[in-house]
Amino acid sequence: MSLVVQKFGGTSVGDAERIMRVAQRVVGTRERGNSVVVVVSAMGATTDDLIDLARKISRNPPGREMDMLLTAGERISMALLAMAIHALGHEAVSFTGSQAGIITSSEHGRAKIVDVRATRIREALDQDKVVIVAGFQGVSETADVTTLGRGGSDTTAVAIAAALKADACEIYTDVDGVYTADPRLVSNARLLHAVSYEEMLEMAATGARVLQLRSVEYARNHGVLLQVRSSFSDAPGTWIGEEDERMEKAIISGVTHDSTEAKITIQDVPDRPGIAAKVFETMASEGVNVDMIVQNVSSAGTTDISFTVPRDDGERARTAVDRLLAQVGAKGVNYDDGIGKVSLIGAGMKSHPGVAAEMFSALAEAGVNIEMISTSSIRVSCVVREADVERAVRAVHARFNLADEAIQRESHPR
Amino acid sequence: MSLVVQKFGGTSVGDAERIMRVAQRVVGTRERGNSVVVVVSAMGATTDDLIDLARKISRNPPGREMDMLLTAGERISMALLAMAIHALGHEAVSFTGSQAGIITSSEHGRAKIVDVRATRIREALDQDKVVIVAGFQGVSETADVTTLGRGGSDTTAVAIAAALKADACEIYTDVDGVYTADPRLVSNARLLHAVSYEEMLEMAATGARVLQLRSVEYARNHGVLLQVRSSFSDAPGTWIGEEDERMEKAIISGVTHDSTEAKITIQDVPDRPGIAAKVFETMASEGVNVDMIVQNVSSAGTTDISFTVPRDDGERARTAVDRLLAQVGAKGVNYDDGIGKVSLIGAGMKSHPGVAAEMFSALAEAGVNIEMISTSSIRVSCVVREADVERAVRAVHARFNLADEAIQRESHPR
Repeated sequence: MSLVVQKFGGTSVGDAERIMRVAQRVVGTRERGNSVVVVVSAMGATTDDLIDLARKISRNPPGREMDMLLTAGERISMALLAMAIHALGHEAVSFTGSQAGIITSSEHGRAKIVDVRATRIREALDQDKVVIVAGFQGVSETADVTTLGRGGSDTTAVAIAAALKADACEIYTDVDGVYTADPRLVSNARLLHAVSYEEMLEMAATGARVLQLRSVEYARNHGVLLQVRSSFSDAPGTWIGEEDERMEKAIISGVTHDSTEAKITIQDVPDRPGIAAKVFETMASEGVNVDMIVQNVSSAGTTDISFTVPRDDGERARTAVDRLLAQVGAKGVNYDDGIGKVSLIGAGMKSHPGVAAEMFSALAEAGVNIEMISTSSIRVSCVVREADVERAVRAVHARFNLADEAIQRESHPR
Repeated sequence: MSLVVQKFGGTSVGDAERIMRVAQRVVGTRERGNSVVVVVSAMGATTDDLIDLARKISRNPPGREMDMLLTAGERISMALLAMAIHALGHEAVSFTGSQAGIITSSEHGRAKIVDVRATRIREALDQDKVVIVAGFQGVSETADVTTLGRGGSDTTAVAIAAALKADACEIYTDVDGVYTADPRLVSNARLLHAVSYEEMLEMAATGARVLQLRSVEYARNHGVLLQVRSSFSDAPGTWIGEEDERMEKAIISGVTHDSTEAKITIQDVPDRPGIAAKVFETMASEGVNVDMIVQNVSSAGTTDISFTVPRDDGERARTAVDRLLAQVGAKGVNYDDGIGKVSLIGAGMKSHPGVAAEMFSALAEAGVNIEMISTSSIRVSCVVREADVERAVRAVHARFNLADEAIQRESHPR
């Protein structure tokens, strides 16, 4: 008998009818002889509605109370799912994060899972029950309710799968799996059968919305094999695991894009040691997540430092840089929120030089100007005009023949 | 410094604006130098909405999951209230029933409070915080979430007040307090300054909706002084406590009415020992709450047994009695859901004979026929036609001069 962890997102449990459909899927898995632990998010727009309610009352609510509020969402969906499974003739029991033993750090709104004490889950499984666990939430060592931040339910599922040594961790979502590019932009984008943890991490970090970065990190660190699938079909979806024999031998896995960042350029910074450190220490102390950083070669003793930040943090970052200008002796600052980022990801890049050049050539041919470049061993990212993003994604996707599985496996353009 | 427990019902926290108003009241109490524990119900129609959701999924949901679902309601209201108090510059912390140490029996949907382990509440009060506790909910010894049943929030407030030996327990609601009769029926009904626990118990049992019976019982058993007040005004409301020197020396406190019951009459029952026992054992095993029971003097070896039950249980009671008919040798059964009950309550009745006769005379003069009578030492109840209830209440209220406080205190009609 296998032990399967299944996670269903907010869209999958959006209303009573959809909850019944999820129940049927869970019961199906059960009746094929598996033990099942289900992790659920809050129904559809519940979390957003609760946030709106809180905003009506306070512009700066205490994190502890915000977590108390938001955790009501999964409480509702998990109880309803337990009822639905019960109505189908199977025993089910729902557990809050606290009851499930999801122990976290105490940073409200962005707590980290530090331990999974799955005693109650194991007992319920031993009693042949379907176990339903609230995603996204946990409890701190001081017995306060915490949340893991947006998308935390994926992490809950992975953490439980790791703690129970589950045979599979299935993440059900509203898309079929991981594609070579966003199918809304690229009509012939292809569903990937499998990607490695590293590729998925790069994809998640550069705009793929299908899985949360941290859940993939957790899965990699604990060796949990993930399967991303659609809750609305029986298609097998995409496997995410170690880069091993079973993986497609593709050089490139996909193209991602992201239009949620802004670019800040500090002009004519004196080329002295310690300046960059000062700039990014300031960003860190302001809690701004800096993504790409580019510093050009110095000319005439000064240089430009450019970096990208989430647009949501843009105002804060800009104000902090303004305060810094005189201190570092820079001339000015430029803020540009009309940018987008296009990234090419593939584990095979490591052993195939020339991929970056091929990408730049494809962009040039499509008339897309590159403003910043950043690379890792399995990724090349280019900042372009936001208006050029769609064109850029299509051009790169076409140049690397990503739509064609056969070509992909055999060779790659050079 | 006094310790005050304040309980706010669902209407009082019905939306963001009302929650802000409650927060202002709490902060006002705090700023007058008191420690405050607040008990809240779920916002407005939340509980009903959640019940509707559950019904869409299952006609017979497991009690454990129903409790899990419903407790989301107070979680939302208590977190929002904590935020509102925080926004007014005071520290506040919200606790679930479990966190607050409300230990209950394990009967889901109608759990009883068996202990209050108020360690966390005390710690938070010591840290000078306003403590907000979810009403209506607790946790069983097996760490499952329970609810106390409708109106359980009053009981939560009283239990906490008892455990903390609070100086006052204020129950805020959408009416001004306890009246001599329902002001919607009797335009000159008078707000009572104080009533005894026993009077309040009789009033709650006979149709006054202002407080739950069990919360008054809990208050009496633990000597908690209650104050019922309006959340929408600063009027002092009604005190409920021991019948002592401070109470008004009124003979009669009020007239209540109830049109939610039905009458069942078993006709021509053989007048043998054990028949009544059999009937009411059956009702008990069906879980039907029998209210009034009347058995007339036997004539020709047979008698009629009449009793009242909640209309909601009517169908169940009737079916059970039907099955019993042959067994007890009765001739027939009559079910009547067109009845109402009018009750007169007053601690002074004990020492003033003739009150019942006066009530019957008032009803007769108003042309109201009495179908059943039942009395306690401080109450007289009459079952009448449902259509006669309003007229009956007005007639009795007028006969005993209940609108006139002065007359009430000095004398009473005989």
